[in-house]
Amino acid sequence: MPISRRGGLLAGAGALLGAGRAAAQGVPQWTLEQGDPAGSHPYGVPSPFEKNVIRRSRGTSKFPTEFSSNTPLQDLHGIITPNGLHYERLHGGVPAIDPEAHRLLIHGLVDRPLIFTVDDIMRFPSFSQIYFLECSGNTAEYRDSKTSWTPQETHGLLSCSEWTGVKLSTLLAEVGVRKSAKWVLAEGADAAVLGRSVPIEKAWDDAIVAYAQNGERLRPEQGYPLRLFLPGFEGNMSIKWLRRLKLGDQPFQTRDETSKYTDLMPNGVARQFNFVMEAKSVITRPAGGQQLRDKGFHEITGLAWSGHGRIRGVDVSTDGGTTWRPATLQEPALPKCLTRFRLPWTWDGGPALLQSRAVDETGYVQPTKAALLAKRGENFVYHFNGIQSWQIAQDGKITNAT
Amino acid sequence: MPISRRGGLLAGAGALLGAGRAAAQGVPQWTLEQGDPAGSHPYGVPSPFEKNVIRRSRGTSKFPTEFSSNTPLQDLHGIITPNGLHYERLHGGVPAIDPEAHRLLIHGLVDRPLIFTVDDIMRFPSFSQIYFLECSGNTAEYRDSKTSWTPQETHGLLSCSEWTGVKLSTLLAEVGVRKSAKWVLAEGADAAVLGRSVPIEKAWDDAIVAYAQNGERLRPEQGYPLRLFLPGFEGNMSIKWLRRLKLGDQPFQTRDETSKYTDLMPNGVARQFNFVMEAKSVITRPAGGQQLRDKGFHEITGLAWSGHGRIRGVDVSTDGGTTWRPATLQEPALPKCLTRFRLPWTWDGGPALLQSRAVDETGYVQPTKAALLAKRGENFVYHFNGIQSWQIAQDGKITNAT
Repeated sequence: MPISRRGGLLAGAGALLGAGRAAAQGVPQWTLEQGDPAGSHPYGVPSPFEKNVIRRSRGTSKFPTEFSSNTPLQDLHGIITPNGLHYERLHGGVPAIDPEAHRLLIHGLVDRPLIFTVDDIMRFPSFSQIYFLECSGNTAEYRDSKTSWTPQETHGLLSCSEWTGVKLSTLLAEVGVRKSAKWVLAEGADAAVLGRSVPIEKAWDDAIVAYAQNGERLRPEQGYPLRLFLPGFEGNMSIKWLRRLKLGDQPFQTRDETSKYTDLMPNGVARQFNFVMEAKSVITRPAGGQQLRDKGFHEITGLAWSGHGRIRGVDVSTDGGTTWRPATLQEPALPKCLTRFRLPWTWDGGPALLQSRAVDETGYVQPTKAALLAKRGENFVYHFNGIQSWQIAQDGKITNAT
Repeated sequence: MPISRRGGLLAGAGALLGAGRAAAQGVPQWTLEQGDPAGSHPYGVPSPFEKNVIRRSRGTSKFPTEFSSNTPLQDLHGIITPNGLHYERLHGGVPAIDPEAHRLLIHGLVDRPLIFTVDDIMRFPSFSQIYFLECSGNTAEYRDSKTSWTPQETHGLLSCSEWTGVKLSTLLAEVGVRKSAKWVLAEGADAAVLGRSVPIEKAWDDAIVAYAQNGERLRPEQGYPLRLFLPGFEGNMSIKWLRRLKLGDQPFQTRDETSKYTDLMPNGVARQFNFVMEAKSVITRPAGGQQLRDKGFHEITGLAWSGHGRIRGVDVSTDGGTTWRPATLQEPALPKCLTRFRLPWTWDGGPALLQSRAVDETGYVQPTKAALLAKRGENFVYHFNGIQSWQIAQDGKITNAT
């Protein structure tokens, strides 16, 4: 096609954006020469121009195997997190497990204690669903976050994948659960041997023993070859590298649910077994670390989720909560899944304070930070789901309004 | 936790599968030592144990930049294709495009011809949806396929992703489309300068100019930084590396829609502009290249899709089409999207001929190969959507029943 036809176009007075731009343009090199052949990357990789879209750890740790890395939410679109960018939360590093040697034991208050190979697990009837996963410590730095922080740093212990596996209920039927069983100990094969107690109701409901994420087998840092997945529950309970499930009549009070993953309330009592991640949302664009270049149209977009089910609505404020407008939810809005929301907005060039507020299908409304702290005090660490604020300055610079 | 408790369990007489196995098990090395730290893979990769799950080209080509590589459907679960495994169909190789230098021109029968940067495109209101993409040449070797072929080889020019971009209708409104415009030429910036004519109705309906797949920016082989995406249409029309859209009053009769991508019918007339990929399905497990090891329970699972909308049902036969049973569809079954189906099956150890038959929401029923050939003759290459058969032999070996 004659490229010269491109010449001579003027700057467009785009009705909505003024987004068209004139550009003198020759034939670029990539049109003049053959590119890479098919199959040159048997397992493909992102464009080198996207090399900054990576997981990042916030700060450094004395124990890098007891640490985390965050998903770059501000660079993502839609709801799926590519597997290479799924957040990591590790307690003893990523074990390199040989799937042929791995075993899952189910025992305790059961009729037929059994040991399963991975192949055994994969022969059972399978199930797939798209679910979010959020670390209970996501946004735990509500007391001392930095104004420079991006969504990756404030909310990046959050990802969303299509998980496939066998329903735990199928395996429980296989071993025969005794009536006295009320809790299930789930235990990982990593060096931390992370263990958590799961209420039997959840085990019978929608828990799965997963072996695949986004179509392919689990990534090593996500529990390869097997993990528990508890939709809507705090991430650490979805035990990775799952090696053991033990049925008991009471919680097992593991190290990971007594010394950690509890919340001290103002009255001195620690909340324990706070499983469900309550409704929460974050605007990912425009957001901290970004820069608005022009007045005029900008889409406000972000993510909302609830461990209790579907997101019913998301309201967005550009004036720090004085007025709110309902955002559009990308359909289908699935239960216990990230929901992408969007709102058209015209920036007038003045200061603005951007907030989003999620409402889930139970009617629960995401609280303000102030309301949450008034209720829980300031000693708690986990399950912070207060409204996030992004400050837009007159020069278009955006910061985390702590 | 005391690992010694694992000892002494007997082989389980599992009710459903007999799947439990006793195994003497010590403490594996990966539990005794710390694993890889968080962030050691800023962009993660699959387990080394999954190194055979890759795209593969079928045979070799004199022109490896005018070639394809197939998705390993038999190794995948659920509906999402990880980006690294999305099939490739290239006509001039994969161009290495600098997104800062790339431009999209929209011109022809419009009021305001405009050139857009990628940043311009990303400022427009966005839209996301999970859609399949299938090459019109998928399963084109229906005349000479090999008995050794796997689903990757028979049906692997098929993938499914969450695509994000701007609706083409938004851009058309921006440039102002004249009433006389009936077709849109879409043209790529690769060395083949692939061009196709798109009916204006599709452009206004659900076409998108996409910049992201499965959350992240497009992969190079999928059109980075911009591609057209036409849900349900044959793959080659979703022009990658999109550089130009020209509005016209008739089809542009490009090389790629005259010399190729047409089908010769028995009466000597070539079908042209066969856009929609009709309802089709394939069993991915058990399937060609696989081996059943034991009699007893096996889940039959596969994928169904239709360019006309939702899959309403999939029937499965294990006796070559004599009797059929309805499979369970994994909800949500989304329009123009892969739908995972599953059916529990007990293999009696004898020969079996596995088939699946998709029905879409229009009532269209996937035809047998014989019915399709009777209607179209044997000169056509594209849009083969006949029922696939997998032969299971008495020893459990599975082959492509050509």
